[in-house]
Amino acid sequence: MGQYAGTTSTDMAQSEHGNLIAASKVNGTNIYNPDGESLGSIYDVMIDKMTGRVAYAVMAFGGFLGIGEDYHPLPWNVLKYNEQFGGYVVDISPDRLKQGPAFHQNETPEWSAGYGGEIDDYYGKTIL
Amino acid sequence: MGQYAGTTSTDMAQSEHGNLIAASKVNGTNIYNPDGESLGSIYDVMIDKMTGRVAYAVMAFGGFLGIGEDYHPLPWNVLKYNEQFGGYVVDISPDRLKQGPAFHQNETPEWSAGYGGEIDDYYGKTIL
Repeated sequence: MGQYAGTTSTDMAQSEHGNLIAASKVNGTNIYNPDGESLGSIYDVMIDKMTGRVAYAVMAFGGFLGIGEDYHPLPWNVLKYNEQFGGYVVDISPDRLKQGPAFHQNETPEWSAGYGGEIDDYYGKTIL
Repeated sequence: MGQYAGTTSTDMAQSEHGNLIAASKVNGTNIYNPDGESLGSIYDVMIDKMTGRVAYAVMAFGGFLGIGEDYHPLPWNVLKYNEQFGGYVVDISPDRLKQGPAFHQNETPEWSAGYGGEIDDYYGKTIL
């Protein structure tokens, strides 16, 4: 335990060298609006097993200290990494995010083609 | 706690629908040789923050129950997902894996371009 205590930021730095970040460290990364205000954080990312591409980021949104959070899957390409903020920027209003496809804390969606299509349709039609 | 007890396989199934798998579930996935014999498992995957591509899979190799393991980063494209095995197949001999770039359990490599190049060079020249 001891050697890891309080070293989160060090771990992050070591695993984020260059453009690479360990998947285990992506989760928890903050998501901001373009003004740098926190919108939420990355709960998990969905990887296409065949192509190795990240298809969706699941954003944790609302709640407090992980309690009462909702999870909002976003197409990966709506997230832009921002070196200055040290996190991702999503240029979508909180209202629009709230109304998008989502699941609750104790639910696990079926990651079917239909569910993916629902996410793509919702955000693909977003006028940013 | 109760609702998650003993449901690892269920969680896997729910998070693996179609071609998508949650990054948090990739870690621990078995790696096999083409004959289906276990070579190791995925310890972590390194994601390019800008493009959203998985660049490297870090393979846990050797050791016993996580003790004494070495970590061998592999270019993602040497791993082929195999539905039948429910894991990834790597067609590289254990001897060749053993001699490749690796780090020990309590080390964290610098994920610099140089380190990536070292991995790419080693495996890119592999005659499969």
